[in-house]
Amino acid sequence: MDPTKLRDLLDGVRRGETSVDAAVEALARQPFAEIGGAVVDHHRAIRTGFPEVILGEPKTAAQVAAIAIELAKGGGNVLVTRVDPAKAAAVIAQIPGMRYAEEARCLVLEQHDIEMRGAGPIAIVTAGTADAPVAEEAALVARLAGNEVIRISDVGVAGVHRLLHRLDDLRRATAIVAVAGMEGALPSVIAGLVAAPVIAVPTSVGYGASFGGVTALLGMLSSCAAGVTVVNIDNGFGAGYAAALVNRVGGGRP
Amino acid sequence: MDPTKLRDLLDGVRRGETSVDAAVEALARQPFAEIGGAVVDHHRAIRTGFPEVILGEPKTAAQVAAIAIELAKGGGNVLVTRVDPAKAAAVIAQIPGMRYAEEARCLVLEQHDIEMRGAGPIAIVTAGTADAPVAEEAALVARLAGNEVIRISDVGVAGVHRLLHRLDDLRRATAIVAVAGMEGALPSVIAGLVAAPVIAVPTSVGYGASFGGVTALLGMLSSCAAGVTVVNIDNGFGAGYAAALVNRVGGGRP
Amino acid sequence: MDPTKLRDLLDGVRRGETSVDAAVEALARQPFAEIGGAVVDHHRAIRTGFPEVILGEPKTAAQVAAIAIELAKGGGNVLVTRVDPAKAAAVIAQIPGMRYAEEARCLVLEQHDIEMRGAGPIAIVTAGTADAPVAEEAALVARLAGNEVIRISDVGVAGVHRLLHRLDDLRRATAIVAVAGMEGALPSVIAGLVAAPVIAVPTSVGYGASFGGVTALLGMLSSCAAGVTVVNIDNGFGAGYAAALVNRVGGGRP
Amino acid sequence: MDPTKLRDLLDGVRRGETSVDAAVEALARQPFAEIGGAVVDHHRAIRTGFPEVILGEPKTAAQVAAIAIELAKGGGNVLVTRVDPAKAAAVIAQIPGMRYAEEARCLVLEQHDIEMRGAGPIAIVTAGTADAPVAEEAALVARLAGNEVIRISDVGVAGVHRLLHRLDDLRRATAIVAVAGMEGALPSVIAGLVAAPVIAVPTSVGYGASFGGVTALLGMLSSCAAGVTVVNIDNGFGAGYAAALVNRVGGGRP
Amino acid sequence: MDPTKLRDLLDGVRRGETSVDAAVEALARQPFAEIGGAVVDHHRAIRTGFPEVILGEPKTAAQVAAIAIELAKGGGNVLVTRVDPAKAAAVIAQIPGMRYAEEARCLVLEQHDIEMRGAGPIAIVTAGTADAPVAEEAALVARLAGNEVIRISDVGVAGVHRLLHRLDDLRRATAIVAVAGMEGALPSVIAGLVAAPVIAVPTSVGYGASFGGVTALLGMLSSCAAGVTVVNIDNGFGAGYAAALVNRVGGGRP
Amino acid sequence: MDPTKLRDLLDGVRRGETSVDAAVEALARQPFAEIGGAVVDHHRAIRTGFPEVILGEPKTAAQVAAIAIELAKGGGNVLVTRVDPAKAAAVIAQIPGMRYAEEARCLVLEQHDIEMRGAGPIAIVTAGTADAPVAEEAALVARLAGNEVIRISDVGVAGVHRLLHRLDDLRRATAIVAVAGMEGALPSVIAGLVAAPVIAVPTSVGYGASFGGVTALLGMLSSCAAGVTVVNIDNGFGAGYAAALVNRVGGGRP
Amino acid sequence: MDPTKLRDLLDGVRRGETSVDAAVEALARQPFAEIGGAVVDHHRAIRTGFPEVILGEPKTAAQVAAIAIELAKGGGNVLVTRVDPAKAAAVIAQIPGMRYAEEARCLVLEQHDIEMRGAGPIAIVTAGTADAPVAEEAALVARLAGNEVIRISDVGVAGVHRLLHRLDDLRRATAIVAVAGMEGALPSVIAGLVAAPVIAVPTSVGYGASFGGVTALLGMLSSCAAGVTVVNIDNGFGAGYAAALVNRVGGGRP
Amino acid sequence: MDPTKLRDLLDGVRRGETSVDAAVEALARQPFAEIGGAVVDHHRAIRTGFPEVILGEPKTAAQVAAIAIELAKGGGNVLVTRVDPAKAAAVIAQIPGMRYAEEARCLVLEQHDIEMRGAGPIAIVTAGTADAPVAEEAALVARLAGNEVIRISDVGVAGVHRLLHRLDDLRRATAIVAVAGMEGALPSVIAGLVAAPVIAVPTSVGYGASFGGVTALLGMLSSCAAGVTVVNIDNGFGAGYAAALVNRVGGGRP
Repeated sequence: MDPTKLRDLLDGVRRGETSVDAAVEALARQPFAEIGGAVVDHHRAIRTGFPEVILGEPKTAAQVAAIAIELAKGGGNVLVTRVDPAKAAAVIAQIPGMRYAEEARCLVLEQHDIEMRGAGPIAIVTAGTADAPVAEEAALVARLAGNEVIRISDVGVAGVHRLLHRLDDLRRATAIVAVAGMEGALPSVIAGLVAAPVIAVPTSVGYGASFGGVTALLGMLSSCAAGVTVVNIDNGFGAGYAAALVNRVGGGRP
Repeated sequence: MDPTKLRDLLDGVRRGETSVDAAVEALARQPFAEIGGAVVDHHRAIRTGFPEVILGEPKTAAQVAAIAIELAKGGGNVLVTRVDPAKAAAVIAQIPGMRYAEEARCLVLEQHDIEMRGAGPIAIVTAGTADAPVAEEAALVARLAGNEVIRISDVGVAGVHRLLHRLDDLRRATAIVAVAGMEGALPSVIAGLVAAPVIAVPTSVGYGASFGGVTALLGMLSSCAAGVTVVNIDNGFGAGYAAALVNRVGGGRP
Repeated sequence: MDPTKLRDLLDGVRRGETSVDAAVEALARQPFAEIGGAVVDHHRAIRTGFPEVILGEPKTAAQVAAIAIELAKGGGNVLVTRVDPAKAAAVIAQIPGMRYAEEARCLVLEQHDIEMRGAGPIAIVTAGTADAPVAEEAALVARLAGNEVIRISDVGVAGVHRLLHRLDDLRRATAIVAVAGMEGALPSVIAGLVAAPVIAVPTSVGYGASFGGVTALLGMLSSCAAGVTVVNIDNGFGAGYAAALVNRVGGGRP
Repeated sequence: MDPTKLRDLLDGVRRGETSVDAAVEALARQPFAEIGGAVVDHHRAIRTGFPEVILGEPKTAAQVAAIAIELAKGGGNVLVTRVDPAKAAAVIAQIPGMRYAEEARCLVLEQHDIEMRGAGPIAIVTAGTADAPVAEEAALVARLAGNEVIRISDVGVAGVHRLLHRLDDLRRATAIVAVAGMEGALPSVIAGLVAAPVIAVPTSVGYGASFGGVTALLGMLSSCAAGVTVVNIDNGFGAGYAAALVNRVGGGRP
Repeated sequence: MDPTKLRDLLDGVRRGETSVDAAVEALARQPFAEIGGAVVDHHRAIRTGFPEVILGEPKTAAQVAAIAIELAKGGGNVLVTRVDPAKAAAVIAQIPGMRYAEEARCLVLEQHDIEMRGAGPIAIVTAGTADAPVAEEAALVARLAGNEVIRISDVGVAGVHRLLHRLDDLRRATAIVAVAGMEGALPSVIAGLVAAPVIAVPTSVGYGASFGGVTALLGMLSSCAAGVTVVNIDNGFGAGYAAALVNRVGGGRP
Repeated sequence: MDPTKLRDLLDGVRRGETSVDAAVEALARQPFAEIGGAVVDHHRAIRTGFPEVILGEPKTAAQVAAIAIELAKGGGNVLVTRVDPAKAAAVIAQIPGMRYAEEARCLVLEQHDIEMRGAGPIAIVTAGTADAPVAEEAALVARLAGNEVIRISDVGVAGVHRLLHRLDDLRRATAIVAVAGMEGALPSVIAGLVAAPVIAVPTSVGYGASFGGVTALLGMLSSCAAGVTVVNIDNGFGAGYAAALVNRVGGGRP
Repeated sequence: MDPTKLRDLLDGVRRGETSVDAAVEALARQPFAEIGGAVVDHHRAIRTGFPEVILGEPKTAAQVAAIAIELAKGGGNVLVTRVDPAKAAAVIAQIPGMRYAEEARCLVLEQHDIEMRGAGPIAIVTAGTADAPVAEEAALVARLAGNEVIRISDVGVAGVHRLLHRLDDLRRATAIVAVAGMEGALPSVIAGLVAAPVIAVPTSVGYGASFGGVTALLGMLSSCAAGVTVVNIDNGFGAGYAAALVNRVGGGRP
Repeated sequence: MDPTKLRDLLDGVRRGETSVDAAVEALARQPFAEIGGAVVDHHRAIRTGFPEVILGEPKTAAQVAAIAIELAKGGGNVLVTRVDPAKAAAVIAQIPGMRYAEEARCLVLEQHDIEMRGAGPIAIVTAGTADAPVAEEAALVARLAGNEVIRISDVGVAGVHRLLHRLDDLRRATAIVAVAGMEGALPSVIAGLVAAPVIAVPTSVGYGASFGGVTALLGMLSSCAAGVTVVNIDNGFGAGYAAALVNRVGGGRP
């Protein structure tokens, strides 16, 4: 029941045109969702500063474009994830200002400047060059949600000195996204070196016993280091989003 | 190389007793770990306010007691996880002030008051009564790390109204730990209702196709809601620890 | 032994041309299947009102067309499932009146009006837009078997208010098909809100730890809500068919 | 908000003591759960005739007894599932009238006669003698929910004639629960012979490649017969409960 | 319909007391199982010479004893598989002449001499000493079904010369049961050396990546040698039984 | 050491040109393989009447043709399995008399008439039409190895009467190959009806929880019927080959 | 054919008492195994310096003692692996000089001094204290096979500085055994730091997604570092044995 | 900190321009990686004689060419693994002297002669012809790292005499790489015949229950033979590399 209708009902009660019994009945049968709708609005308000997001993969270019145009009316920034180049080209042709972040495989429509809201920089760390697309997706959503992003690339555990070389950058970050395939050990090593929370993203990089990212996923879940949490395989978006949420705890930047 | 030895070396250089070449040689061959040791110290300093933690399960009562006594010398609080009642009794007999948190299956030695450091309360939410032990472990480490804890119990998704009834409490929390077995859907529903980051803990509750928590784990990783990250099955400690880290991002309470 | 042959044998006995011993022998050795054939006929009679069904996937267009033409001779409606557009076009070219339900990926030949037989409407509920093809297949078979179908779409558990908004429709249904991928939690939430039986269909929607629908399947089987039963991954046909059977228990509509 | 409080609020509006704005505000912020609570009550009313159910396995005898006593106050029948003999004895000692159904491993407190509500009998069919405990659990909940139960035992597919021998009984049933371990083929064979819906229950009977019921579960999900739905391994309770729900569709018995 | 009833019916037809129509009706509705019962008898007759078999594992000593006594009335030999020593002692106490084959974990009641029926000897081959119990079970059922048994033990592939040493014995066999755990390679090597069919039995021997016999099972199924078929993990009974069936093809011994 | 060389050595000893010591040395160091080669010849001789077999899948058309030409020199029949139509055409172009069995996806070169060697007919039974290619491969190798083949098609367990209808044919067979996908229950039902050994072949037919044939495989291994052995998924060749071996036990036809 | 018999045969040929034809026949039919036996002797000679090894787990104390006594007659050292304390005590009671290495769960009988044969020291490295038993087993067999052993303990990747601290010791080793549970990342880090071959041993340490060592196993197989090979879960013996073999390549110590 | 900067700092101390305190501070905060960088250099020096290696699979031809050109500047040999023919052609077009090893699917640039460093020859053994590509990759890296390579092909365990025929070659090898798909039993048989360490490589050859190499992998890990270690599925590169490392232990060739 939207506020207008509710006000009408209550006005009826106040004027004596609606009996209290009838109003009790009407309100008690009120479907949840009307209030639920309000909840969502309130909720979205709290997440102000995040882009509108469309999962592009299972949708046609026409569907993506239609939804993106609709969402863009709100004036916010719009992010479409998991878009291949052909679909991207088809969408861009319909939406002025939309651009394609090729490595991240995302479409972005930036309609307003991004206000910095995170407590500090988010580090996006990769074990190998093949992890870059997932990391780029994470970096994009983190940036659009108002965070400075530090990229630390190709610092896998088989060359631990390369990671140590970037320790100062790692320590500057207030939240860390660690992206790795194969044995997925990078987040464990990082969590042993820094005090910030580490969000681990397994990637489907590797072959044979890597099982499309399952080995990295299990390794991250079994991490011997406290402070690591994990998202789904190749879920760069989820990691960047969660890192952005984490990075606002405590009110974000002054 | 500890600072004393380093100072001695440098004093030798300054006094001309040690040649620059010899000092270069000594420092270049300096094992990493000496500096690494310093790193760890620095690192631990950042995590000030966390208890010292011992994983009790693979250790004998004698081993637990010895390590706990050693760690207690630092004056901090000490937490021992995964301790059964018999082992707990044996340890308590040796350490005055140690007490057993039975439901959490943890031993705790509180040597000083806990300073509140979190940005706000951490909500620990369970789907069913059988998830309580894991939740208690999470609650204990979160509290010892300086956080107010709100418990929201037995609000599984098959009775979604019970969860909605606690919505105000959920929204007060700045970080949420959601504990569930069976299909593990609770974190998805929560993340759709609140703006705080949600750390999901699958439990080994259930039978048959629950596969000792694997189904809940996979469900949480596949969550259709953004903002959810996951820890290992039954890893209440890891969830509480990560929630405490998250809850300090941005500097924690003023 | 078909009735004619059986009658001939008995006539022989009656006329004294066949001894009782010889007839006992002949009947005792009678293969099962002859009677079995009769059983099937009887059985099919009970399922009157269901369409004839062909699984299109492993067959060529020519095979599908031949079987469909044969089955259509009985005068009933014919449904072909799992047909891609190219194969559909090839079949339609050979069978006047056959049409293609594109989203459901089914061919339908309606040769007679459908008589309503269900006790009430069947609700087909989806968690996300990507679940639509499976839901459409379920809806098609449910309708062809004589049921009113209510569609409730895109009400996944990460936005539980959207589901609550449709509660009146859900409660009108006498049987419910709940279609969901990823964590597959939708059936649990529904079964907690309504009194009708819920048939859950996991879909192969999702990536990584969704494992092509296995996670949703396991989640549905592990449901914490009573009243949920499950069919195979992406088995919209099976769910719609089972819902139609359920919806006739008690005699269907008056 | 309970009806009394709601009425007070509306009376205030009617009397002019509460402004319409204040009432809008109060109602708009009304937590879901209050209405949700009402929903549940309504919902439970629809499921009248089902026993109150307690999952006994993860609870102590004391916990079971306390909950059972509380639930019994409502005057309904009470069922406790998954109780071993020792725990059963301890509970019985505290609750007069409670009795132990040993094979089903359930405690039952029947406080009132059971009203028949099902459309017809429910057949509970087992493949082998080792499937009996799961079948008994299903039979118990089906009976308590107001259904006549037909038991058809030990009719596994390696002796298909034994099943055919019971065909008349099978065909009398309006809903069927088929319980089988090992290859789990029984439900497929049954669904090919009858017109009623078949609810399949895999059991953990078997060894090696039976994998504790997983093989039977997968076999049932992959059934080549339409009309089969599946519940979790060893979930006799869930199967009996779902069968009882199904058996009321269409209004149950005249 | 048993022969007596059938004869009565036909007599009625012959005497003109029963119309042909009524008899057709009665016979057409005749349940399968009556004839099915006859089928089974016929079938069992073909398998003359096999012992009666009881799977002991899920039954109590009292149940085993009762069934064994019942089956023994037919005068045949009786085999009870998967019986631990305690249960065996309890059964033996009730059945004179029953003895316990400890390594095979079977009870045997030999009421008559065994007639040799196999085409030649069956070789039972093991890879290691830990495979002996499964092999003994296979040997026991093979012998009871009328076969000479050759034991070739401890000839695993890591010492291929030990197997070659027994080549003459292997080549004498007309059917071979190859029992192996760990990598399960023994059947492949044997099938490359002999012309007889090889029935492979994986055992649950091994640890870690042996996964309780699954690795051996998969290895045997993936065998690079033609002529190998496989039974379930630890299923010595099934292998011995199948070998005995195979060994009678062609009519067995002259 | 081939016979000629061996004879030369012994002649040397006989003539006194080679000392006994030198001959002992030479013979003791004789590599296995020389005798091994002889073994293989002997072994192949025993399997006389089987075709020469080439696994076509991993080889190029040129490789297949070269090997087939080489093998054909021996005058025997040649079978190439797992050949797609394009590769088949390329091979046929090079080898006169080679023909393509399309459904079985095999190439066959029959250079001599096939002598009947089996004890009786081999029945090749399928559950559904999609199982036909695997069955055809089995039938082809069985026939080439000297067996009469009976085809019994499309008799899956969801229509058990269709199988019973063919019972006489089933009982005529001295060995049975049962081919089924999905739940894979066909071999269990057959083994309960006949006395011949049953070789079960799981097929990759089905979707979702069929897991590419794994469910059928596990179901067959877990069969509740004695007398069933299993080969790898889709391994029609292996099943037909093993059936042919089995069908010669006891000496085959008189 | 043992040398004596062979000599007799050849003497017969030399004396003209045995024809060349008869001798060719006798030798051509000579079973492989006789020569095979010789091969093994030769082979064992090459592995001189390794202890005799008995896998204790599946054997009774009496069996272990009997085999150990038999093997001890050769004068070599004897190692029994996987022995629990009770079994160990029973064996020691029968064999003077046998002692129990408790942490390694092994029995050892050292009858002669161990000659150093390895090229250099073997480092046995563990990630955590719970990995110690597996490491001790590896260390024991490595030492008995003639190698100096360096222990580097509790240097898991979550505290990478602890590992770096021991870099000099690591670099001294000519072969490395790396033992780790949970995510199993230790071998990758080590292989990135040293030039020696690394043999990785996954342990069953951990819970939940560690799956009894499977996660560590998969991680090690998927290692991003070249130079790592892997043995079975908890297979300390196999790792130590392989390391000892590796450590002799090139002839071992001068 | 590079030596020059370090020297400057120490010169400052020596001259009194830098205080000891400031130097301690500067050195204690020295990032690990600087020293780490040195470590890597030192480390690479030890592995002198190995080619530079690029994993070609996830990179474009342009990326491969650029990296190869860069690495080639060092004057060493360069190996690119996992390159398909099209990519190979594109790279070769840009780099004079680069050639394509087609079966191994590798690009090789040999800029200098290879110095023999291994203790003896490395045998690369395959079970079947389909294992050749993986074996060729192993052979290539082994040769480039300074080893003589012996190829022993197509000696799978179903024809064990073929393997025995090559025993002399096997025994000459100081390290062995055994490559096999399907049941993966070859390494076990080899390790029972020779004294050299065996590195096992499972291949993805096979179908059905081979599960893309998983069955071979598990079989190799479960090997009943001591002295076997395992690398990832199809990881020919890793096996050849590890064999080359092993083959230098003890200093390699004199």
